[in-house]
Amino acid sequence: MYNRMDILSDKDFDLLHENTLRVFEQVGVAFHSEKALDIFKRHDIKVENGVVYLGAKDVEKALATTPSSYKIHARNPQHDVVMGGDNLVIAPGYGAPFVVKKGVQHRAVLEDYRNFCKLVQTSNHIDYNGMLMGDPSDIPADRGHLHMMLANLVNCDKPFIGSSVSERAALDSIEMAGIAFGGKENIQDKPVTMGIISSLSPLAYSSEMAEALIVYAEYGQVNMVALLSQGGSTAPVTLPGLLVTQNAEILAGIVLTQLVNPGSPVIYGSTSTVTDMKTGSLAIGAPEQWLIQNATQQMGQRYGLPTRGSGGITDAHCLDMQAGIESALSLGTTVMSGANFLLHGCGILGAYIAMSFEKFLADEEICGMLRRNLKGLGVTEERIDFATIKEVGPGGEYLTHPATFKHCRTEFYLPEIMRRNDYSTWSVKGKKEIFDIAEKKVEERLEQWREPEMDGDIRARLEKYVEQAF
Amino acid sequence: MYNRMDILSDKDFDLLHENTLRVFEQVGVAFHSEKALDIFKRHDIKVENGVVYLGAKDVEKALATTPSSYKIHARNPQHDVVMGGDNLVIAPGYGAPFVVKKGVQHRAVLEDYRNFCKLVQTSNHIDYNGMLMGDPSDIPADRGHLHMMLANLVNCDKPFIGSSVSERAALDSIEMAGIAFGGKENIQDKPVTMGIISSLSPLAYSSEMAEALIVYAEYGQVNMVALLSQGGSTAPVTLPGLLVTQNAEILAGIVLTQLVNPGSPVIYGSTSTVTDMKTGSLAIGAPEQWLIQNATQQMGQRYGLPTRGSGGITDAHCLDMQAGIESALSLGTTVMSGANFLLHGCGILGAYIAMSFEKFLADEEICGMLRRNLKGLGVTEERIDFATIKEVGPGGEYLTHPATFKHCRTEFYLPEIMRRNDYSTWSVKGKKEIFDIAEKKVEERLEQWREPEMDGDIRARLEKYVEQAF
Repeated sequence: MYNRMDILSDKDFDLLHENTLRVFEQVGVAFHSEKALDIFKRHDIKVENGVVYLGAKDVEKALATTPSSYKIHARNPQHDVVMGGDNLVIAPGYGAPFVVKKGVQHRAVLEDYRNFCKLVQTSNHIDYNGMLMGDPSDIPADRGHLHMMLANLVNCDKPFIGSSVSERAALDSIEMAGIAFGGKENIQDKPVTMGIISSLSPLAYSSEMAEALIVYAEYGQVNMVALLSQGGSTAPVTLPGLLVTQNAEILAGIVLTQLVNPGSPVIYGSTSTVTDMKTGSLAIGAPEQWLIQNATQQMGQRYGLPTRGSGGITDAHCLDMQAGIESALSLGTTVMSGANFLLHGCGILGAYIAMSFEKFLADEEICGMLRRNLKGLGVTEERIDFATIKEVGPGGEYLTHPATFKHCRTEFYLPEIMRRNDYSTWSVKGKKEIFDIAEKKVEERLEQWREPEMDGDIRARLEKYVEQAF
Repeated sequence: MYNRMDILSDKDFDLLHENTLRVFEQVGVAFHSEKALDIFKRHDIKVENGVVYLGAKDVEKALATTPSSYKIHARNPQHDVVMGGDNLVIAPGYGAPFVVKKGVQHRAVLEDYRNFCKLVQTSNHIDYNGMLMGDPSDIPADRGHLHMMLANLVNCDKPFIGSSVSERAALDSIEMAGIAFGGKENIQDKPVTMGIISSLSPLAYSSEMAEALIVYAEYGQVNMVALLSQGGSTAPVTLPGLLVTQNAEILAGIVLTQLVNPGSPVIYGSTSTVTDMKTGSLAIGAPEQWLIQNATQQMGQRYGLPTRGSGGITDAHCLDMQAGIESALSLGTTVMSGANFLLHGCGILGAYIAMSFEKFLADEEICGMLRRNLKGLGVTEERIDFATIKEVGPGGEYLTHPATFKHCRTEFYLPEIMRRNDYSTWSVKGKKEIFDIAEKKVEERLEQWREPEMDGDIRARLEKYVEQAF
């Protein structure tokens, strides 16, 4: 039967892969970093005028050493995660300059960032702490990452994303992660953190990104090589064309990681989408984004790599039905296409311009519901329980049957903020929308947060590092 | 690679099917209709105390004559649809007693019903007109179907659902459909309409439903045999158990259709879900509902039958983010699982208690986006367009490239009510939510509606039929 999710045949993949190799050979990928160019040159890869021309052999060689799955260690080992296989790891929104509430934006500040860390720490559905969960405007730009790393380490003991805004920021992240794990030598080739590496579409890498990538690779930390290219502006207008340029950009970055440190862990991914042709702006709620997600996850899987998708993302600026539709179908498509890692899992509004605390919780609920469904049906004789069906018979009822009591707490997902009241109960309770429920829940979650344990000496050294960094 | 949508293995299916046969043999399905029981008896099927005990052979025999696909004819042949295969036919919400707007409910009236017909007629995404799009409270209960059938035929020339509230109502629907098509003989075994047949879970059929089913089958019209059973109250609490009782109920109905008229068209489906264990109420936004949808579509496909799923359904009472999440993931899961027919595609709020005009349009948008994605990627050399990638090169831009102009109107879905403005444009324009945009659009759609052509004589005869019916 035609499987509507199976949108990439082997033939499709081969065509996309072959054309990627043609791009490598005839068009190339520009790296605006001498350091990166030198690495390619040292490995006898053709470089001309700052453009790198990979060969098929270079790609094969890289894919032979990239691990298909690996563990990422948390300060608290109970929160270790496995990247790859059939695992699903969810991280929050990343990179928004604003925080928005009921349609009113304010520039994000460090206190917002700390609060997002606390939400991650208290979350049943998010397993990976972020970076840039709001970009703190009350910290000088070149020091932001230090405070965010400190906040990550102090407020949350789940694994976390490091900074990749520059080589310096990446090194600071590694240093601070090193302090937290009792010494930098303890984390060499033992993944504890991740750099989010975006190419500069089309077909280029900025010096900052390339050099951050090199740092993470050197230390054997995870390079999540992804991008946001826009069909019709920074990528071809046709989706197959976009998948080719996207693939070239990602693979070029991955090749570089393996040249720096063969076997260093990577993730293959994207949050590419299309341009809204009416306004010329980014359209992250577009249905094409879900299609691209599906294809991207399948391509990464074919390369034997852990894959990254996007999460609860939307062009809406408030928690209305549009926000729900777009976030749910983005998250849902990505998860059902096999994604291993979701960035922007929770909290994004307005095409990445803002984080929202209330949306964070609503997106978490989507994640919880999808995770429940990933457990599947569990079809066994025992769970079919024919004996009960026979006992209840035609016209009977199951509500008061012992079997129902036995299973009712475990069989069904128990929502945290979705409401299921009938109309009159809902009316009597004030006709609340999910925003209202979420708003209250955010407060409760921040109340219930407790600072995770940290060695006093480590804490002091981290704070000193932040203070003294340039 | 583990495919997260493939939740029903062959082994799972066999186990569910075998247990369905055990239910038929040892538990049976009750039919509260002498007429139906007689039909089973006449075919040497065991009937005892109003309970029917089917054999494996009865099921096989029925599945040998059910068509796997067929056309349903519209008054306007341009709106004919094909049921089955890889087709997708979407119909509106069905059965709600109220209409709701901005959280305020009023009992549905005939004028609401007519307006829903007009929305269907002017829709780019809905191909099938309903019945009970709101249940008109200003018409005596036993005459409602007559007025709805008249409204269907006059306001819309797409195919439509008939009434199945009783044998009488089904016969009236057939009579009126017959008038519209120039005579009842013209529609004998030529599908023009459909009865929505729900079993009485668990494991029973009311006399009304069974006898409506018999009427539709006799005339070779479509029987959409589905149900709404509730895990933990009218079905087992465990999902595999629910899938068994559900399967038994659906197949029993389908067997009856084939005994009445072998080869008469059917659809296999469900909108079953779970009970909210906190409140005891129906939870149609539950994630288990999407899982059940997926399994149901797959089971119907394995039986070689066209399948029915649910559409944009939610427990929310207004167009907030919960409504978007639940509607999108229900619609999305059902469509991606291969459903051929969606009932409740558009308009439902509050666990089926109300229809909403604004939600109708928002759900339509989801349908439009999903349909766009069903077209797939179209991976060809031509659409990869390597020449343009080479021309633009690293660091170039596609926005002003001729290829972009060429494709920009056809490649991307153009949303009807989703907004993609940046924050300041959105603010300046009044911070509208999708409800506001939809509200305005509803008015526009009703304005632009034009009554489809109908022979004056046919119109007169239909009106006379309504007037004179008992």
